[in-house]
Amino acid sequence: MDKTGRFITFEGVEGSGKSTQIHMLIEALQDRGIPFLHTREPGGSPISEKIRRLLLNAEHLEMTPETELLLYSASRSQHTFQTILPALKAGKLVLCDRYYDSTFAYQGAARNLDLNFISELTGFATYGTVPDLTILLDVPVSAGFKRITNRKLDRLEQESSAFHEKVRLEYLSIANNNPLRYVVLNGLDQPSAIHEKILSSVFELIGEN
Amino acid sequence: MDKTGRFITFEGVEGSGKSTQIHMLIEALQDRGIPFLHTREPGGSPISEKIRRLLLNAEHLEMTPETELLLYSASRSQHTFQTILPALKAGKLVLCDRYYDSTFAYQGAARNLDLNFISELTGFATYGTVPDLTILLDVPVSAGFKRITNRKLDRLEQESSAFHEKVRLEYLSIANNNPLRYVVLNGLDQPSAIHEKILSSVFELIGEN
Repeated sequence: MDKTGRFITFEGVEGSGKSTQIHMLIEALQDRGIPFLHTREPGGSPISEKIRRLLLNAEHLEMTPETELLLYSASRSQHTFQTILPALKAGKLVLCDRYYDSTFAYQGAARNLDLNFISELTGFATYGTVPDLTILLDVPVSAGFKRITNRKLDRLEQESSAFHEKVRLEYLSIANNNPLRYVVLNGLDQPSAIHEKILSSVFELIGEN
Repeated sequence: MDKTGRFITFEGVEGSGKSTQIHMLIEALQDRGIPFLHTREPGGSPISEKIRRLLLNAEHLEMTPETELLLYSASRSQHTFQTILPALKAGKLVLCDRYYDSTFAYQGAARNLDLNFISELTGFATYGTVPDLTILLDVPVSAGFKRITNRKLDRLEQESSAFHEKVRLEYLSIANNNPLRYVVLNGLDQPSAIHEKILSSVFELIGEN
């Protein structure tokens, strides 16, 4: 690996299997002694984790879409500056569970906020940082929700299935518009088969074999 | 008063006497039975008050200027939608201790963030809401700080006097560019004399005498 790290993000609707796949990838990286940082959004720094609690609090039903967008952006700004960029500069591989594509999908497509404004806001909040690789685990919304029935749902997970359908379609559209950055995988395939494909993309990115 | 209320904001550096003057105005309004809402930024709604605690926490020294700007904007969005706009629609006079001009002064001029971006962000976070009258209590920074020596300073109050000088100059510049909306008063005058001038501006605005 060269001196600057690589930035990999994971996207998908609720129950798409992101956590499972990230953990399988982490084990594979550890087995090979490849240094990495595992982080998530919203969150990933002490201030950002406090913002996360505001965002996902299931009692905050009065939160406006505008406030939600701005809080995600605030969390992202601190997280990017304090956690992601230093790790990339130190040459680490950064694995992030959700990044700005989630905002285009959830606050843009599903909450119907202006995508051009979100784009400008994202440039500001990320200091222009763009992932090198984004893994989209695509599953039908109903299948995803079946997988998380035992979980206490947060404020966004509680939204309607029509809301989550918009999220899914926006992800597919973003992937379509960013073919060099995106790898779209069927989240209903066997976890081990998905893992092999992710490993192959990641190793290609960092020049491992 | 007509069916839609009037929106009055108070601006100034730390120790400029805003709180004292707002409370003197409130007493005068109560004496005359004029319905009003007294609120403040950051804060003014339950979610916004939680954001306030993140913003002013003296331990959050690692907060980036970008995160700070986005948190102020998030707080403002919720506050405007949930508190200010309903009160204005109900025909109330809204008195707000700080509003978006503070962001131009503190995050724009003093933190050196792009004023055009702040302007766009402000339009989004306020739903285009503009105060009908802004009272600027102007005091030299050193005189303001002498007044708050007994107070435990929050994260922004702890900034250097050079920082607060930039804030003061930006307020004067905004006032200069918005002569119809702004009334600039010398915060070193006698409180009762300042109060009379504020009362006269407010009564002119709402058609009282």
